[in-house]
Amino acid sequence: MADGNSAYGKKQFKRSRSHFADRVTADGRDGWPVAEGRYRLVVSRACPWASRAVISRRLLGLEDALSLAIADPVQDDRSWRFTLDPGGRDPVLGIRFLSEAYNARETGYPGGVSVPAVVDVPSGRLVTNDFQQITLDLATEWTALHREGAPDLYPERLRDEIDDVMRVVYEDLNNGVYRAGFATGQTEYEQACTDVFRRLEWLSERLAGRRYLVGDTITEADIRLFTTLVRFDPVYHGHFKCNRRKLAEDPVLWAYARDLYQTPGFGDTVDFDHIKRHYYQVHTGINPTGIVPLGPDLAGWLSPHGREGLGGRPFGDGTPPGPVPAREEVPAAGRP
Amino acid sequence: MADGNSAYGKKQFKRSRSHFADRVTADGRDGWPVAEGRYRLVVSRACPWASRAVISRRLLGLEDALSLAIADPVQDDRSWRFTLDPGGRDPVLGIRFLSEAYNARETGYPGGVSVPAVVDVPSGRLVTNDFQQITLDLATEWTALHREGAPDLYPERLRDEIDDVMRVVYEDLNNGVYRAGFATGQTEYEQACTDVFRRLEWLSERLAGRRYLVGDTITEADIRLFTTLVRFDPVYHGHFKCNRRKLAEDPVLWAYARDLYQTPGFGDTVDFDHIKRHYYQVHTGINPTGIVPLGPDLAGWLSPHGREGLGGRPFGDGTPPGPVPAREEVPAAGRP
Repeated sequence: MADGNSAYGKKQFKRSRSHFADRVTADGRDGWPVAEGRYRLVVSRACPWASRAVISRRLLGLEDALSLAIADPVQDDRSWRFTLDPGGRDPVLGIRFLSEAYNARETGYPGGVSVPAVVDVPSGRLVTNDFQQITLDLATEWTALHREGAPDLYPERLRDEIDDVMRVVYEDLNNGVYRAGFATGQTEYEQACTDVFRRLEWLSERLAGRRYLVGDTITEADIRLFTTLVRFDPVYHGHFKCNRRKLAEDPVLWAYARDLYQTPGFGDTVDFDHIKRHYYQVHTGINPTGIVPLGPDLAGWLSPHGREGLGGRPFGDGTPPGPVPAREEVPAAGRP
Repeated sequence: MADGNSAYGKKQFKRSRSHFADRVTADGRDGWPVAEGRYRLVVSRACPWASRAVISRRLLGLEDALSLAIADPVQDDRSWRFTLDPGGRDPVLGIRFLSEAYNARETGYPGGVSVPAVVDVPSGRLVTNDFQQITLDLATEWTALHREGAPDLYPERLRDEIDDVMRVVYEDLNNGVYRAGFATGQTEYEQACTDVFRRLEWLSERLAGRRYLVGDTITEADIRLFTTLVRFDPVYHGHFKCNRRKLAEDPVLWAYARDLYQTPGFGDTVDFDHIKRHYYQVHTGINPTGIVPLGPDLAGWLSPHGREGLGGRPFGDGTPPGPVPAREEVPAAGRP
């Protein structure tokens, strides 16, 4: 999210809560009913929180119902910008900076501008930047617009277990890597880094004998773990000093991550070029030169993972998503 | 060496040449004859160039003939200091900073203070800081004081080949990692990092079928390669962005490095704590927080390497060195 509200610079990194927490729901109770073509999902492919929504949207087949704006992975002092688009403007919203949608919603909003953001196209106003809720709503409120064969990413009977897993994975790992990377004191760093690897070990044990985190199908919990794991060796290992071992040195988690990467809807959303450039060029507080490392070698992401033998039904009673729309294909520079 | 003369801060890092290039020789032609107990070798266990001399001294059994001063791994603005010793003074030279020996040699010397340094104990004057020559002289000029069974680290009939190997390994790897880490431009970094990994691949091929770099015994070439490899995963991989892969991900070089690490005279000189604290705390230009990473896991250094099957005679017609003198043992914090 790269949220300007976050306490980067203080001893311990604290992620700020989303300020705009309206929900897009089937019944429209917040004033934002699910509607085909009405909203635009603004993301950066660099951002793990935004990437959850990109994956959910693909798995659920919402590409036509909810259009996608991809911000430049490198923000300037005005935050996320549409410099990848012709003329530097998002072609649908007509704006140059995501902050314009924030300002349309609340004049003079003093907080940070973060992705993922859902924007109401007719009014140009931000609806929500609540990264923890957006994907749950895509899974449970947008059902009328799901593709045929869309999986159930948040099955009702498993929600307690999914929520429990997601909570500890968030605290120790999804956000733990940021606490490690943005720590300005040795003690805070060591606590965070220890949390990260303790949670990775827990996950490695859990996933040794089962293909997915909860139940026998892909759920929201896998999506949220994946977007952190796919960034681990390219950025968190070196840039955030989470370097006890690489993901590629944990046979279970490395196979689990490759399994998901090779599943339609996951790897086809990942842009390693955006990921690396964002972290290494934006965080000049921890990488003053802005130099982007050449490594790691990404070829391994395409190697056989051997997890089929664990069983599991990736899409449950559903089917995999079709190919990526041509306009959303990840450029070669971002792929292994 | 952390030499103040080096052009850190300019686009491309250039290592300065040693200013004091007198040699301690058997015939004393520079005024410094080999003599038992006359000289003191000043090192930092953090420094790869100084660590070459520490290993050579151990392998050759020169511990009693040439005493050892170990500087604090973290310099202050007066450079290397003896803050590990009681009262913050080297007990033999009686000085607080290595720069005092430099000044005793040349008043107002404007260059950097580097290790390894050989200091004449009676006069307190620096003799040489020529890191490329010191170890060659230990091997070939100090022979009268070598222990019984000392290996020939620079065999006459192999010198051309040793020199050739050492030259390319120095340019691309020993110094290449510094060019990568201290680059301030993307292009210079990428060139250096590419050189590093091209040379590692060349070494991996060379060492796949032979136990040592040149001939079938340990030579100076192995010592110089080892002091870079042992620092690779703890510092060069992350801190210097040489992250295409870890040493531990190259089966040949990882086994070669472990083989040497487990050979008396190599691993028993390595202080991973000094290594990590030096690089991460001193180079605030690339690690502004000064935070020292917890990783990597070092346990692997003690795992079986399986290289005995390649043959080779580590010490040739000689024998391994005896145990480390108690006063020079690496503290537990620095060992796997």
